[in-house]
Amino acid sequence: MVCAVGWFAKPTHPNTANIVSSKYLREFLDEMQPDQIREHLRKFTRLPHLAGTEQNLKYAEQIMKEWQEFGLDSVEMVPYDVLLSYPNKSQPNYIAIVDQLGDEVFNTSLAEPVPEGYEDISNIVPPYSAFSAQGQPEGDLVYVNYGRTEDFFQLEREMGINVTGKIVIVRYGRIFRGNKVKNAILAGAKGIIMFSDPADYWAAGVQPYPDGWNLPGGGAQRGNVLNLNGAGDPLTPGYPAKEYSYRFSLEDGVGLPKIPVHPIGFHDAVHLLKNMGGQIPPNNWKGGLNISYRIGPGFTDDFKSQKVRMNIHTNNQVTRIYNVIGRIRGALEPGWRPRRTIIFASWDAEEFGLLGSTEWAEDNAKLLQERAVAYINADSAIEGMYTLRVDCTPSLHTLVYDLTKQIASPEEGEEGVSLYESWHKRDNWTNDRDAPRISKLGSGSDFEAYFIRLGIAAGRARYTKNKKTERYSSYPVYHSVYETFEIVEKFYDPTFRRLQAVAQVRGGLIFLLADSQLLPLDANQYADSLRKYAQSIMQLAQRHPEEMETYEVSFDSLFSAVENFTVAARDFHVRLQTLNRVRVMNDQLMYLERAFIDPLGLPGRPFYRHVIFAPSSHNKYAGESFPGIYDALFDIENSADPEKAWEEVKRQISIAAFTIHAAAMTLIPPA
Amino acid sequence: MVCAVGWFAKPTHPNTANIVSSKYLREFLDEMQPDQIREHLRKFTRLPHLAGTEQNLKYAEQIMKEWQEFGLDSVEMVPYDVLLSYPNKSQPNYIAIVDQLGDEVFNTSLAEPVPEGYEDISNIVPPYSAFSAQGQPEGDLVYVNYGRTEDFFQLEREMGINVTGKIVIVRYGRIFRGNKVKNAILAGAKGIIMFSDPADYWAAGVQPYPDGWNLPGGGAQRGNVLNLNGAGDPLTPGYPAKEYSYRFSLEDGVGLPKIPVHPIGFHDAVHLLKNMGGQIPPNNWKGGLNISYRIGPGFTDDFKSQKVRMNIHTNNQVTRIYNVIGRIRGALEPGWRPRRTIIFASWDAEEFGLLGSTEWAEDNAKLLQERAVAYINADSAIEGMYTLRVDCTPSLHTLVYDLTKQIASPEEGEEGVSLYESWHKRDNWTNDRDAPRISKLGSGSDFEAYFIRLGIAAGRARYTKNKKTERYSSYPVYHSVYETFEIVEKFYDPTFRRLQAVAQVRGGLIFLLADSQLLPLDANQYADSLRKYAQSIMQLAQRHPEEMETYEVSFDSLFSAVENFTVAARDFHVRLQTLNRVRVMNDQLMYLERAFIDPLGLPGRPFYRHVIFAPSSHNKYAGESFPGIYDALFDIENSADPEKAWEEVKRQISIAAFTIHAAAMTLIPPA
Repeated sequence: MVCAVGWFAKPTHPNTANIVSSKYLREFLDEMQPDQIREHLRKFTRLPHLAGTEQNLKYAEQIMKEWQEFGLDSVEMVPYDVLLSYPNKSQPNYIAIVDQLGDEVFNTSLAEPVPEGYEDISNIVPPYSAFSAQGQPEGDLVYVNYGRTEDFFQLEREMGINVTGKIVIVRYGRIFRGNKVKNAILAGAKGIIMFSDPADYWAAGVQPYPDGWNLPGGGAQRGNVLNLNGAGDPLTPGYPAKEYSYRFSLEDGVGLPKIPVHPIGFHDAVHLLKNMGGQIPPNNWKGGLNISYRIGPGFTDDFKSQKVRMNIHTNNQVTRIYNVIGRIRGALEPGWRPRRTIIFASWDAEEFGLLGSTEWAEDNAKLLQERAVAYINADSAIEGMYTLRVDCTPSLHTLVYDLTKQIASPEEGEEGVSLYESWHKRDNWTNDRDAPRISKLGSGSDFEAYFIRLGIAAGRARYTKNKKTERYSSYPVYHSVYETFEIVEKFYDPTFRRLQAVAQVRGGLIFLLADSQLLPLDANQYADSLRKYAQSIMQLAQRHPEEMETYEVSFDSLFSAVENFTVAARDFHVRLQTLNRVRVMNDQLMYLERAFIDPLGLPGRPFYRHVIFAPSSHNKYAGESFPGIYDALFDIENSADPEKAWEEVKRQISIAAFTIHAAAMTLIPPA
Repeated sequence: MVCAVGWFAKPTHPNTANIVSSKYLREFLDEMQPDQIREHLRKFTRLPHLAGTEQNLKYAEQIMKEWQEFGLDSVEMVPYDVLLSYPNKSQPNYIAIVDQLGDEVFNTSLAEPVPEGYEDISNIVPPYSAFSAQGQPEGDLVYVNYGRTEDFFQLEREMGINVTGKIVIVRYGRIFRGNKVKNAILAGAKGIIMFSDPADYWAAGVQPYPDGWNLPGGGAQRGNVLNLNGAGDPLTPGYPAKEYSYRFSLEDGVGLPKIPVHPIGFHDAVHLLKNMGGQIPPNNWKGGLNISYRIGPGFTDDFKSQKVRMNIHTNNQVTRIYNVIGRIRGALEPGWRPRRTIIFASWDAEEFGLLGSTEWAEDNAKLLQERAVAYINADSAIEGMYTLRVDCTPSLHTLVYDLTKQIASPEEGEEGVSLYESWHKRDNWTNDRDAPRISKLGSGSDFEAYFIRLGIAAGRARYTKNKKTERYSSYPVYHSVYETFEIVEKFYDPTFRRLQAVAQVRGGLIFLLADSQLLPLDANQYADSLRKYAQSIMQLAQRHPEEMETYEVSFDSLFSAVENFTVAARDFHVRLQTLNRVRVMNDQLMYLERAFIDPLGLPGRPFYRHVIFAPSSHNKYAGESFPGIYDALFDIENSADPEKAWEEVKRQISIAAFTIHAAAMTLIPPA
């Protein structure tokens, strides 16, 4: 569930100072009770509900009914016809080892062992890579660690191995799986297998599910392997997938991989990896299995005649999906209402490439650009048992801190301690800033189109692990069949108080964004963050001091733009204290995030348009600051023409400086 | 001079009906007097003032000084460093006929005969094609009529002539000269000569200047030959050309022609054309010179050994230009002020590709998108002696009619007749609409970035010729040295009352846009226009009824979108009569034009983003409605793959339908 906050304030007391608390906030926060959260989670996790299936429509109808009963002013179902991808029910996907006669002497499992309590559930989709190409490529395996850009470079340059015509096998983790697939295709592979290694999906001292929350050896990670870069439905990039919409052919679709892809668990992976020949890799390529992680190509002499064959029959299919959209209208009547309209959205088909949320953003782009104040995302609420995690735009930092001081810590033994204190104690930001850490927004969830394409201030919150000691990506059972209601109830949050705290953060943010007279957005925080990001990207460039001199690369224009923005932000907030023009200044605050959007998009990524925040081209999950400069610097090391590559760095610095100047202008008092 | 109207109304009497007249309007219109206009024109036409020259800076300073004296709240000079193009002073450009020894036996003139009264003026720039490539290509001439896409097709397909490696000679007129150059390059020519033919630049029964207003045989048309498609400065597309801005190399610049280009008058053209050999062309390829207009390639047998050599030494050069920007702040104080801020702009370097206006638009895009209500262009105010000409967005139609009813006709013998009546009598729209004709905005002047890139409601007005009887493009002396103050004073407007009427239209539009409580924009007129455009583009497609059936091309979705928009517009204006939410509904009106912008741009033209209005790819001057569909249909006839070409038509219909639906949504009452 996801919430966007609309526009249309009616300024009533323009001279009242902005107050983060509201007389209704306490009441609102107290409404959220662990029992209700438990019940809600139980209800919606009982049955498999893959996007595009009947059961998913039933859940959408259920949400619609509940929202109507809750008293929302309007609730509607908004359908789109998007490209989805399903395994072929009569021809299962698997990977085989074949002998010299072509006979399959080993096959990977067709499904995960079903956990207790779910034995009678039908329609559990087996692990698969959504949008994989079909095919039965056969050949030698090459192991390429995490399949990152740098792994493929190391393989090719240091180890001298070319994967053209080979099948690559990589472990999950570190970067988005779609990036691994893209890298494999660029390197010339004809198939790619991804496995979950215990080194990446086991926490120390924890049992596999159901006795603990680690990933069993039979579990595998599902997920799409697209490279959409924000395009939404692959066949209707830039436009909503409506009935009358023009659809590209599959061949021209955005981001569809051209090779077969398949995910497996580590029980199966051992069989594929254990007899591999070739070099022994450096230690940082070795996972947690009791094998040598040789790189190949192919098997050792004893098994030389054996090959690996992928059997992939997954189908792409245009399918109807359903968002549920509910509204509470902004206050213009008696009885409490939020000052601004609140839109609730239940997005369909997030797992297939953020399709429901992106199509609706495309459908409503004009209105959202003109009127949306903020977007608060509500995906996975818990991925660990340690403390709060917030990723948001810098202008929301102050609000997040103020709000979490009014929410109780959910941790045992912390009665009377605020969530802020509990979080601060566990995850202080940096040595030079004494506050809980807040991270940049990356991608991989439904805020993407709202933040990175449209430039709407956005944030997300969840409960997380201790990053210092727990090194695995996301959480061990992520996207496996073991991601159940029971794992939350038994391990992650038995009292449901952590989920309660997360709900209070998300709900409280929406409440205050919708109901504060002055928008609780802070331009000074944006200025501070911009300065830090500028320093950090300059340091990245300064790893090449000689080239910076040769090619006359300077960050002066960027720092000068940041300085200009800083002054404009400071002056703006001074005026905010004294002036009487609430509506005008709220508009300026609302449009601040929009000012960082470049309509031309980032190079080669027309739908990633935020100049300050976007994932790098090399990993969709991680948010980078100054992604244009970052990617240009990344490319330096691989460029055949360094002068040209540095020219691109200079061009990106100039675009960033210009955009920050333009954003500063929006904070200046209207002519 | 150009005016944009800002934002920031203070709604005071929300229930007052919108009144097009204002108690100050009459006074304002009466301020504009012929004598002042005469004096103003005299002052600024005395000396040559090419963009980037010292004299042009002096004029900019003069404008700045005058605006300050007029009492504007602020006036500033805004510089940009853009690519300009000048002839080489020590190596003049000309075209020669060379004999078999390579000796030049005929040279075109290096300058136009200077008109009386200007003998002592230095720095008159000779005719040249700005941004021409340098070079001295030598070869046979081919005559290609107006150099339109269809002319080159006819040449290649019907006449069987290939221009690869040839120099083409085309007559000016019908389409923008840059499109002629593009077509010549695509066809493989190695140089292009453009001449003004009397058939296109002589009015019947009129003497050449100075005895009349026709173009003398020694006059030639200057002008840039870029294909910018809205990019502004060729080296900084999408971003303002500031000191810190990154500049592409000349090689990577936008729209710079790769071949030499040069303009000549018809005295010179006769020498190049009269001995040409080859076929005699159809009559519609023949101009008004006493020659046979043979096509070539090359000369007749008697002159076979002669070739044509172009000598072009024009230089591209990054040069500082200066816009002057003045502001009158919107009303928040005592004393009359307009309700909304008015920005006056004197754009530099219009002739070099709308550079000053586009760079400023790029520099201020965020603020303009959020706040600009309308843009009124003020380029060339008179091109004929017949009646008023207005090109504007449909939402301004009603305002233009209402205003012109309050302005007096400038024509002799029409005392007491309004400009509206005078105009209506001379140029009724169509058989089915009894009102003066208003045309679509094309391009070729400084409104372009504001209207076609940013989606700000825009219009322009001037006095024009009788299109039914006067077939020449623009006006005969256009861009020649004979375009003087005296030609206006003696022939076009001896009383300066026509210019007065034009000033009153432009000024009145700005006055009413800035000062009316409810914005005088009419969504119903937009709906009407959309329906007409949809019908007309469908009729164009229906010239291919069989293909439409084969490829299942339907316009239903477009008409359904137009219907949806029509209902939304009607409901909007009904609410406008009764509701009390001036600011909210003014915002909706302001953003209506913006709603037609597609951030992805038209195919291959990222800076032309208006889905309803843009020039076609084949002629920058003429505004097309539904330019995406229009261009796709144009390409049908030339496509090697008709299925693919029709797919593009379908895709463009779908984009147009979606955009109109999205625009309709912006008129619906906020949730």
